[in-house]
Amino acid sequence: MNEQMTQKPYVIGLDLGGTNSVFGIVDARGDIKATTAIKTGGHTTPESYVDACMEVLLPVIEQVGGLDKIKAMGIGAPNGNYYNGTIEFAPNLPWAHDTVVPLAQMFSERLGGIPVGLTNDANAAAMGEMVYGVARGMKDFIVITLGTGVGSGIVVNGQVVYGHDGFAGELGHVTMVRGAEGRLCGCGRTGCLETYCSATGVARTARELLQNTDRPSLLRELDTESITSLDVSIAAEKGDELAKEIYDFTGKMLGEACADFAAFSSPEAFIFFGGMTKAGELIMKPIREAYEAHVMKPFRGKAQFLVSGLDGASAAVLGASAIGWELK
Amino acid sequence: MNEQMTQKPYVIGLDLGGTNSVFGIVDARGDIKATTAIKTGGHTTPESYVDACMEVLLPVIEQVGGLDKIKAMGIGAPNGNYYNGTIEFAPNLPWAHDTVVPLAQMFSERLGGIPVGLTNDANAAAMGEMVYGVARGMKDFIVITLGTGVGSGIVVNGQVVYGHDGFAGELGHVTMVRGAEGRLCGCGRTGCLETYCSATGVARTARELLQNTDRPSLLRELDTESITSLDVSIAAEKGDELAKEIYDFTGKMLGEACADFAAFSSPEAFIFFGGMTKAGELIMKPIREAYEAHVMKPFRGKAQFLVSGLDGASAAVLGASAIGWELK
Repeated sequence: MNEQMTQKPYVIGLDLGGTNSVFGIVDARGDIKATTAIKTGGHTTPESYVDACMEVLLPVIEQVGGLDKIKAMGIGAPNGNYYNGTIEFAPNLPWAHDTVVPLAQMFSERLGGIPVGLTNDANAAAMGEMVYGVARGMKDFIVITLGTGVGSGIVVNGQVVYGHDGFAGELGHVTMVRGAEGRLCGCGRTGCLETYCSATGVARTARELLQNTDRPSLLRELDTESITSLDVSIAAEKGDELAKEIYDFTGKMLGEACADFAAFSSPEAFIFFGGMTKAGELIMKPIREAYEAHVMKPFRGKAQFLVSGLDGASAAVLGASAIGWELK
Repeated sequence: MNEQMTQKPYVIGLDLGGTNSVFGIVDARGDIKATTAIKTGGHTTPESYVDACMEVLLPVIEQVGGLDKIKAMGIGAPNGNYYNGTIEFAPNLPWAHDTVVPLAQMFSERLGGIPVGLTNDANAAAMGEMVYGVARGMKDFIVITLGTGVGSGIVVNGQVVYGHDGFAGELGHVTMVRGAEGRLCGCGRTGCLETYCSATGVARTARELLQNTDRPSLLRELDTESITSLDVSIAAEKGDELAKEIYDFTGKMLGEACADFAAFSSPEAFIFFGGMTKAGELIMKPIREAYEAHVMKPFRGKAQFLVSGLDGASAAVLGASAIGWELK
């Protein structure tokens, strides 16, 4: 058998986060064969960051049989541009905050020219669900990531929607509350979905309700300024009415937003991803109810509302690696 | 030269409207070589409708050299489902209002088995712009049709977005005004974009302003109940302040909606289609201004705002015919 015809059974995934950069070597079934990591910060230039990556990555590549076994690499990164393979002006990355870094090309050159793809973490999550997770076999779905912010990865006709410039899929920034009463968003605008439905948004809703009413709540035992969405979820599980109302409010807004998203791409499923999904039915039930109450009739009762099928700890690495399978 | 290898230079387009069914035989450059039409109503069954169509269609097919010259047929129809080639429960079609009509298949059988595709009129308009109009060469754009209603055809990565069920692209029914103050929509919900920004919506805004204020306006010379968007446009051209304000309000809402659509698919262009675009800058200027004021920073200054490049009278037939070129 010709050596060159040997199949390459693995892809590399890199989950490039603000704090850690985690690598995984993954097979087609989503099993992580080897993993390693470095701190993302502490490097002043893109070159020194990639140097540090290669130092830990090459040994794990050898563990799985060497570079000949690697088909491609996928990177999930903040401000990632799929078309160019670049990270562009990423505010939380000291070596990329004021520049455009051709990170895909840099890794490809260090890895014998294998294809390297890069996109933002929410698009990577969508790829991960399609390749290994609950969206296997689906061609039209939307992943909504509920974390510090609200992100999204939209799949239409089996392809992630990148838009004409590579930046499509920012559903955390559709306007849910128009005009002066909308909450100020980190993006500089007001009323964005993210300001209400991120973990930060849930904490904000809690603070507003605690400060603007005198309703009793277990949450009053905590320091108001440091309340988190997890605190709210724990209080709600204990039967706290105010805490339940906060999740109802959050889920209702997500459900109404999904009703608008259905009018756009009529997905088979909405898949929720991230820490806040740990609240389970507390958040999922009001999402479904608001969706069915607000969605246009032709879409009613059709969409599934699912929680990510990827294991929390490795989900981001799996998502990143999934990009690799799509590369030619 | 083998007879079978002769290229088929034409497609048939059918613009199936509530009143008229217009056929055109179209070449690859968008030149309409022959045309014919029948009334859409007056037929009690789908079969008798197709019979009547064939009676007028077969002679024009002969005019262009016979069925051997026809590659395919495309149909733009209300409640058209692309995946099945069916018209489903179309309220304004007496022979399809309470049933599912496999219209694409019926025409294919009568036309020697040529491929026949069918979609709604707004998706057909999007195909028309991509094949013959201002979207030639674009892969990501959104057509917004401003007529009795507001429709949309969304193109992502060079393909019309149909969604998992064939009904995607209903941007006239995203919610722009939430809660009790939203206008009641024909879809049974409230606050839809269509209730403000269709021709009917413009007339509704005019009536509201005339009835709820005592501001002077040329529009007061007209019967308030029968005011149309054209009346408002004519008054605005004459410098009527109230009429101008109505178009400002309409355009502002469209621009804000487009800002949300950018967060979805980041299109290269928004293309407006339909009678209301005759108002020109009166509507286009506030759209652009509201868009740039409301869109998220990464998208600012990137999208083009265009008016359809297809000739008004034949635009719908051209759009329908464009479906034909995509069929295998």
